[in-house]
Amino acid sequence: VRILVVNPNTTESMTAAIGEACRAVAAEDTEVTAINPAWGPPSIETYVEDYVAAAAMLQTIAAHRDDYDAFVIACAGDPGLYAARQLTDAPVIGIAEAAMHMACLVAHRFSIVTVIDSVTPMLADMVAVAGMSKRCASIRATALSVLEIEQDYAHAERVLVEESRRAVTEDGAEAIVLGCAGMGPLDKRLQSELGVPVLDGCGCAITLAESCHRYGISTSKAGAFGMDTGRLARLGFPVR
Amino acid sequence: VRILVVNPNTTESMTAAIGEACRAVAAEDTEVTAINPAWGPPSIETYVEDYVAAAAMLQTIAAHRDDYDAFVIACAGDPGLYAARQLTDAPVIGIAEAAMHMACLVAHRFSIVTVIDSVTPMLADMVAVAGMSKRCASIRATALSVLEIEQDYAHAERVLVEESRRAVTEDGAEAIVLGCAGMGPLDKRLQSELGVPVLDGCGCAITLAESCHRYGISTSKAGAFGMDTGRLARLGFPVR
Amino acid sequence: VRILVVNPNTTESMTAAIGEACRAVAAEDTEVTAINPAWGPPSIETYVEDYVAAAAMLQTIAAHRDDYDAFVIACAGDPGLYAARQLTDAPVIGIAEAAMHMACLVAHRFSIVTVIDSVTPMLADMVAVAGMSKRCASIRATALSVLEIEQDYAHAERVLVEESRRAVTEDGAEAIVLGCAGMGPLDKRLQSELGVPVLDGCGCAITLAESCHRYGISTSKAGAFGMDTGRLARLGFPVR
Amino acid sequence: VRILVVNPNTTESMTAAIGEACRAVAAEDTEVTAINPAWGPPSIETYVEDYVAAAAMLQTIAAHRDDYDAFVIACAGDPGLYAARQLTDAPVIGIAEAAMHMACLVAHRFSIVTVIDSVTPMLADMVAVAGMSKRCASIRATALSVLEIEQDYAHAERVLVEESRRAVTEDGAEAIVLGCAGMGPLDKRLQSELGVPVLDGCGCAITLAESCHRYGISTSKAGAFGMDTGRLARLGFPVR
Amino acid sequence: VRILVVNPNTTESMTAAIGEACRAVAAEDTEVTAINPAWGPPSIETYVEDYVAAAAMLQTIAAHRDDYDAFVIACAGDPGLYAARQLTDAPVIGIAEAAMHMACLVAHRFSIVTVIDSVTPMLADMVAVAGMSKRCASIRATALSVLEIEQDYAHAERVLVEESRRAVTEDGAEAIVLGCAGMGPLDKRLQSELGVPVLDGCGCAITLAESCHRYGISTSKAGAFGMDTGRLARLGFPVR
Amino acid sequence: VRILVVNPNTTESMTAAIGEACRAVAAEDTEVTAINPAWGPPSIETYVEDYVAAAAMLQTIAAHRDDYDAFVIACAGDPGLYAARQLTDAPVIGIAEAAMHMACLVAHRFSIVTVIDSVTPMLADMVAVAGMSKRCASIRATALSVLEIEQDYAHAERVLVEESRRAVTEDGAEAIVLGCAGMGPLDKRLQSELGVPVLDGCGCAITLAESCHRYGISTSKAGAFGMDTGRLARLGFPVR
Repeated sequence: VRILVVNPNTTESMTAAIGEACRAVAAEDTEVTAINPAWGPPSIETYVEDYVAAAAMLQTIAAHRDDYDAFVIACAGDPGLYAARQLTDAPVIGIAEAAMHMACLVAHRFSIVTVIDSVTPMLADMVAVAGMSKRCASIRATALSVLEIEQDYAHAERVLVEESRRAVTEDGAEAIVLGCAGMGPLDKRLQSELGVPVLDGCGCAITLAESCHRYGISTSKAGAFGMDTGRLARLGFPVR
Repeated sequence: VRILVVNPNTTESMTAAIGEACRAVAAEDTEVTAINPAWGPPSIETYVEDYVAAAAMLQTIAAHRDDYDAFVIACAGDPGLYAARQLTDAPVIGIAEAAMHMACLVAHRFSIVTVIDSVTPMLADMVAVAGMSKRCASIRATALSVLEIEQDYAHAERVLVEESRRAVTEDGAEAIVLGCAGMGPLDKRLQSELGVPVLDGCGCAITLAESCHRYGISTSKAGAFGMDTGRLARLGFPVR
Repeated sequence: VRILVVNPNTTESMTAAIGEACRAVAAEDTEVTAINPAWGPPSIETYVEDYVAAAAMLQTIAAHRDDYDAFVIACAGDPGLYAARQLTDAPVIGIAEAAMHMACLVAHRFSIVTVIDSVTPMLADMVAVAGMSKRCASIRATALSVLEIEQDYAHAERVLVEESRRAVTEDGAEAIVLGCAGMGPLDKRLQSELGVPVLDGCGCAITLAESCHRYGISTSKAGAFGMDTGRLARLGFPVR
Repeated sequence: VRILVVNPNTTESMTAAIGEACRAVAAEDTEVTAINPAWGPPSIETYVEDYVAAAAMLQTIAAHRDDYDAFVIACAGDPGLYAARQLTDAPVIGIAEAAMHMACLVAHRFSIVTVIDSVTPMLADMVAVAGMSKRCASIRATALSVLEIEQDYAHAERVLVEESRRAVTEDGAEAIVLGCAGMGPLDKRLQSELGVPVLDGCGCAITLAESCHRYGISTSKAGAFGMDTGRLARLGFPVR
Repeated sequence: VRILVVNPNTTESMTAAIGEACRAVAAEDTEVTAINPAWGPPSIETYVEDYVAAAAMLQTIAAHRDDYDAFVIACAGDPGLYAARQLTDAPVIGIAEAAMHMACLVAHRFSIVTVIDSVTPMLADMVAVAGMSKRCASIRATALSVLEIEQDYAHAERVLVEESRRAVTEDGAEAIVLGCAGMGPLDKRLQSELGVPVLDGCGCAITLAESCHRYGISTSKAGAFGMDTGRLARLGFPVR
Repeated sequence: VRILVVNPNTTESMTAAIGEACRAVAAEDTEVTAINPAWGPPSIETYVEDYVAAAAMLQTIAAHRDDYDAFVIACAGDPGLYAARQLTDAPVIGIAEAAMHMACLVAHRFSIVTVIDSVTPMLADMVAVAGMSKRCASIRATALSVLEIEQDYAHAERVLVEESRRAVTEDGAEAIVLGCAGMGPLDKRLQSELGVPVLDGCGCAITLAESCHRYGISTSKAGAFGMDTGRLARLGFPVR
């Protein structure tokens, strides 16, 4: 299986870390390619960045739409996920949906532990659109910004353990969904400290993309995700 | 009051018609400027177009963020509305939300009558995120594409009357929200034929923008719509 | 535009203050008349008072049903709002709905800050019937009774600032809807202290009534708000 | 047990029929008194009538608040139910809630079959406020007006059988809640024709009032239904 | 009326106490028989015990299906309630549903106060399936296990008063539903200490079973609860 | 990975077919063992059978709880799923949840097409408890009984194609979840005829069990699914 993982932001060190996290979970015969758009914001912590990064990500996927068996969008807000599904016949998995669906298999309710407070309303709406509100115990922000995480993993780990413990104790969470692709490298350390399942969407998305491929299903073109491919030519993407 | 109306698609005849519809409702001392982005799709009927057009619209608003007292986004899916609110201290009104909120003042429940079927899931999620599901009786698609409407208004009128009647008779709608900015010029004719309120979001948004301005409220910067303006410099918008 | 503002309680000083708050926002060519019923309770803090005041208010509107272009019901529980819409062809705006709909234009979620605790369940059901639950972060009671407010505005202001701050900090509110018509005169002072939009329904309702009039929509008679006017003669209102 | 049954409308033949329906179900040691207000509309099919009748009903209950062990409000929209609970320490049962709660004991989902179409939105909001939406399969209107029912019971029976069958076949209803107190005399005939439980709220309310009394619970005064009785003196009810 | 009360667990002292609680509320001409299955767990505090006890309870009811006028399932999680309704034409009342429906007659919202924390998710799903989420303010666990209650009623009372007070003060509960059949004997003492209605499902279920019988309704066989009795022979229950 | 697939009914030909369907999807290094309980009903089409089969299934899993890396419950109502999770530290996947979660990856909304009408309310509650209501367009019953399917696959295929087409055309379904484990062998034929993804929970559950294993998560023991294993000894399972 050939999977293209697109980090919608333009921070290449993060793209590399995401690629590694994905490869650590991928099956032996799975080939993971991790890239990011050529333009757009270095991190996604606002609605504005979400839209701009989504547009850049869509341009990136459109350019590779026939070259992979599955696509993964590696940002915990699933920016542009439904749009990306219109671009290709292969399955497209968002890491937020991936982690939430897998959390439902091992927990009655999960919490999302994420970066700075400004992303909470975005994530809340994303959870509702995904139909996951009943299973989501809470969304908890921290003081971490996206780009700080990889600068001091030990600090991030301490912050995430502390906030996740509150989710378990105060909100009834039974599993933790990591609310930023940059937190992926910490999943197993956090799980071992917390004693509850900790889910990085990157790892989850890879196994789900493989599952779709192996079981033989792909994005339905019967409704929301159908699109006449002739429309691609009139999108008017800016040159870059 | 100086209001910038942004049609997120690039069809200039539609921008002109939207501008006219807005001016027809605006107060005497309101100055309406209607523009569209320099790049992006000519109409928005898919998730992909929604995201690309939103990014272009955000770039447009960012360029004019200090020049107007209020902004209106003139597409019935409210693409990028929450992001646009992060760009400016002035109120930003989406025409879908505008028409739905005003419909709630004159009807127990409203229906949205819109263009082709592929936009229905997008609109359904938009209605849910806006918190309007309880008041929305149904979303009804037609065979009309966005660009066909202005090519044959008489035909569009016939189609819209027929579908709206079904919404009233079968779904319990008491008002009709027009699900495309291009339908705006037909609002009064439809209202007179149907005998129930018919709401074009453009007209609604203008009066609501004026209302915000007159009453003295603007976008809250305390949560979802706050953004450090320093972030604008790192958005990485492509040149165009 | 001639707008009749009906304060459903019988406290005339409050009616006068409401009239002033409305006129402060009204457009130049809008004529605001503020009245209250001849009978009924002096304030509305219980279900019983809500029903009795609503009946008195309906009798009042029925007597003036052909004399105004729009009606405003000036009590933050919107008592009898749907019934009032059956009495006239002109738009009828409740101040609770007015403030909530306008809050949705400037905030992801709002909180209602209101008088004594006993009104909370009433307001909660009103918010749900209005379909506003998704946008309402919380309803917060204070120790203020309706009639105390105008007796000591400085005290009321302190209490409201404190409770509103909790709504912003603890509940995620991004705007404050004032939960009593008597609080209206404090809206701008509170907004300036809190730094988030503060909405008095009276001001909002006036601009929305004007908006309906200017845009040319009125209460739908196709469903919930239709009524054969012959029924007015058999209502059996008591003489007073 | 002494139970006061208040028919909120002023049609005395209907009050008599309601009294009979109640007595048919009451336990041997239960004493049922059925009355109606001295003023107000002869039937309740609009929001306006609902409010006026509720105010008259509240005045009636207030006059008898210390004289009975329980109160029943005999109108299928439960007008003024929560207000009535504030007037007395005895239990107050609305016939709509009564029938819906008992329907939940014998059916997975029920439908309400009611009078003319205009009451549907009122009933829909009543069901939602009661928290019964999940159990309510549908609300089905008929061409019957409230006062026609007792004028031709055979006709009413035919109409109700037909509409109830649609509720069972098309909506998945497993029990039928009669949506008008005037339909009560037909409950057993309908049940025998339809083969599913048919619930008249009057009979249900009597047994539930007895149940509350026998088990020893009464209206909670801790929140929504508490009221300082001193407030009764300042209600300003009109004389009649 | 002959009512069979089935305690789904196998602790006979608890069965006896439940029988007593039921008889204390039953009408004079009601005959209450309380039994428990011959096999299964001594208490129900986990999903596993819920399912095993439900199967044993179903076998018990099947053996007596023609011998009683009504059945009560005396465990506060209503295990196997819908299945039991398929076994008999007589009404079958679960004590959780019974207490919740009666609580709705005397309180705007109720809280469930129950045993150890592990039952909370089970009860939360039971409340949702029953359609009671809107009326349920909270579910509060205590440190009490099911079997400890009858070993030290004084201790249980202290614990329940304390937790119930929190439900009233912090969650807005206006009535308390006891979340374990073993708490029944404490209902009146708790009610008198707390000053709000306290509901033991056993007492509630008896009066509701009598109500169904007296009013003349029984379990609908039109949908969820219909079952061809020929299926009983192929259930394959193990011998015991 | 060693996976135990438990068919909760006692029809061995169905167990064999389920085993085959699972093995067809399993990875090369996955070992699938398919068994059924020694007692219980031959098919599950009623609540009664659901509970009895669940108890038997739990006894079966308890006997093998330390012998496998993952467990699959192969009945489309997920009977006893949450209870089974309490019995083991390994992941336990229900085929209904499995198919629904994977359907969410390829479709905006899915429909469940199932056997006879009596299972619809059971499935509706299962969907709601799983938190999947927002994504589930409809549940459609057919005239097929569970055991008829394998007796005439060609007939079953025709029936399922017809009903699935209605789900796509009338309900807006974009994928079909097969509502009975016995339908699994038809998934690819149906998918090819319908042109939308068709999901058999058995195949989905196998890949999800492998995904959990490979990614390194297992059932959370922090809340709903924790259980002191000492409780197993006191379950009082009947001998068989």
